[in-house]
Amino acid sequence: MMAIQSPLQQERTADDGVPVHHGTVTFPAEQPLDLDSGKKLGPFTIAYNTYGTLNGDKSNAVLICHALTGDQHVTNLHPLTGKEGWWSLLVGPGKPIDTNRYFVICPNILGGCMGSTGPASVDPATGTPYGLTFPVITIGDMVAAQNRLIEHLGIDQLFAVLGGSMGGMQVLEWASRHKDKVYAALPIATAAWHSSQNIAFHEVGRQAVMADPKWLRGDYHSHGVVPRNGLAVARMAAHITYLSEDALHEKFGRNLQNRSDRTFSFDADFQVESYLRHQGSTFVDRFDANSYLYITRAMDYFDLAAENGDVLANAFRGTRARFCVVSFTSDWLYPTRESREIVQALNAVAANVSFVEIDSNAGHDAFLLDEPEFFATIRGFVESCAAKRGLPPPVEQA
Amino acid sequence: MMAIQSPLQQERTADDGVPVHHGTVTFPAEQPLDLDSGKKLGPFTIAYNTYGTLNGDKSNAVLICHALTGDQHVTNLHPLTGKEGWWSLLVGPGKPIDTNRYFVICPNILGGCMGSTGPASVDPATGTPYGLTFPVITIGDMVAAQNRLIEHLGIDQLFAVLGGSMGGMQVLEWASRHKDKVYAALPIATAAWHSSQNIAFHEVGRQAVMADPKWLRGDYHSHGVVPRNGLAVARMAAHITYLSEDALHEKFGRNLQNRSDRTFSFDADFQVESYLRHQGSTFVDRFDANSYLYITRAMDYFDLAAENGDVLANAFRGTRARFCVVSFTSDWLYPTRESREIVQALNAVAANVSFVEIDSNAGHDAFLLDEPEFFATIRGFVESCAAKRGLPPPVEQA
Repeated sequence: MMAIQSPLQQERTADDGVPVHHGTVTFPAEQPLDLDSGKKLGPFTIAYNTYGTLNGDKSNAVLICHALTGDQHVTNLHPLTGKEGWWSLLVGPGKPIDTNRYFVICPNILGGCMGSTGPASVDPATGTPYGLTFPVITIGDMVAAQNRLIEHLGIDQLFAVLGGSMGGMQVLEWASRHKDKVYAALPIATAAWHSSQNIAFHEVGRQAVMADPKWLRGDYHSHGVVPRNGLAVARMAAHITYLSEDALHEKFGRNLQNRSDRTFSFDADFQVESYLRHQGSTFVDRFDANSYLYITRAMDYFDLAAENGDVLANAFRGTRARFCVVSFTSDWLYPTRESREIVQALNAVAANVSFVEIDSNAGHDAFLLDEPEFFATIRGFVESCAAKRGLPPPVEQA
Repeated sequence: MMAIQSPLQQERTADDGVPVHHGTVTFPAEQPLDLDSGKKLGPFTIAYNTYGTLNGDKSNAVLICHALTGDQHVTNLHPLTGKEGWWSLLVGPGKPIDTNRYFVICPNILGGCMGSTGPASVDPATGTPYGLTFPVITIGDMVAAQNRLIEHLGIDQLFAVLGGSMGGMQVLEWASRHKDKVYAALPIATAAWHSSQNIAFHEVGRQAVMADPKWLRGDYHSHGVVPRNGLAVARMAAHITYLSEDALHEKFGRNLQNRSDRTFSFDADFQVESYLRHQGSTFVDRFDANSYLYITRAMDYFDLAAENGDVLANAFRGTRARFCVVSFTSDWLYPTRESREIVQALNAVAANVSFVEIDSNAGHDAFLLDEPEFFATIRGFVESCAAKRGLPPPVEQA
């Protein structure tokens, strides 16, 4: 039923400490997925990267769930941007998520645009891109697709599932819907439901995309155009929410961009304007506008309490997983109080939970940045779980 | 040189307590204005409303400066929207700014679109709308234009100048550039410079307008079109910043709009989406897109310290005005610390300053809402100033 397109290969660590990267593998699932909307989607494909080696009893698998605009390129050079993978500070040989020790899997989410089936994919029923005929999916649907991949890889239980932001929402769905398949769960900089303010920012982004005449009601692929301007505006608005006001102030303040005085024009006089315009225009080169609509919609729909009779604790009842919930002081997109709500729900069902609020002024993006206290937290928690799970200790480096 | 188009009329209070409103008056200034950019603008027109009666020695004039999307319709029904004036809770007979006692003047700002000269006005040199040939103006330029109006009205000193948000920036410029003309200054929910984050949000709004193909590089008036979609997106993004997360949560939460479940579509399922779309679409009916660009630019350029040798206190050196600085706890656009910076600068030059932080969860918009503690603060400060100034006490109501 499920063909293995590319077998997992043995991974070795190169002399310079950079993991030898398998490259993206695609897993085509023929059996349709039953979506939360009641619709079916299939066949579908999940593209994923792996790092490290799966051990004999398949007990060392770590699933990484990426955020809204992330992808499977966790810790290798990105094939489109040429930049380091988005979590290369956290994941790699000797890193807190040690690829010498764990077998790391990162799938591109369902609805994404880096190889997994999404609105830019060709609908096999019509031979043309789905566009807006792609069904609206949920975070739970993304996890259901990942679960197919994990079954396909023959892994009964993931040693750990971790992710930040929307990745953390997937972690929560894994811990809720697949209780026996998660040994340790690390929801980071996230929430159990999307707040009103966050829905509002997403709606602005979607309206910006849809206001672009080149969006063509989602059918731009068929017409060989791209709603670049709308998607860039959406990215700019969202990007502000990823940083703290302090971070913006320290990074840019009111500094002018390559000029000594204001130009009295609408040029990007200020560095922060120039930075935002750059963020907008480069994003468009690597991301599909319809994917942006579908993924933001999935986040808006996320409400783990509503899925569980309006009682968040019900989502975790019966769990035996170990949880590490992490928030950052200056994150105003998913503020600490939203992490505390997760912790309180876990406490209510007597789950095993650690909670750490990391002091950082970097805003929501802190989970992607060089935050030593964050890395130490993850390393300590994961090593402690590995010891309990009976995984061999890290190999001493010569 | 300056023609008085419409003489000030005697105002009486109607029996129901609603002030008899003069209607908008226009003041055409023939002498060009020397702008901060070095350019000249003129002739120009300032449209303004007044409420109450100017006393014999012209000592009871109160100038109200409006915010980005405000106008001169402070406390009368708005001619376009039919809604109550934007500060009708604060200004009127018996209100904290008592129109039975004070002569209230509110001009539409230079660059605006409600009768004062702005980018939508016809350039007398060409006979066509200015569009992008309108010069980029500053908050100081807006105040210079208002100063012409005050001279035209024969008022040597304003009893009080007050305004919130961008209105507060104008108050600060008045107090700095026209020290002898301001008896009392009330900068509310504002800052002495526009922060990096605020510039960023404005830049998103401008890019949204400019991305609309109907913007036509600012020349849409000549082509009979309006960049509605872009301006609506700009308004939506800005509107989120006017509210606190708590206010959004309390007002909307994750409530659905006239439906019992998610539609699994891109409809406005959530009330907050519906609300934002409404804010965007109604705004477009009353505001000019180019005005939005020019006014946000003026705000971004505002930096009272930079204008004064990078020392904010220099802006106020020698002032004899009485200041009342007001901030709101949940205002994240102009947080309290930015008001404190103004207060510290005033303290540094031994100015007479009161500072009040009002406890409110309404966000930046609190200054427009029913906030009794805010009203009591304004009333108390203004009455105390009136007593010092020797203005007659309020007339006892029967």
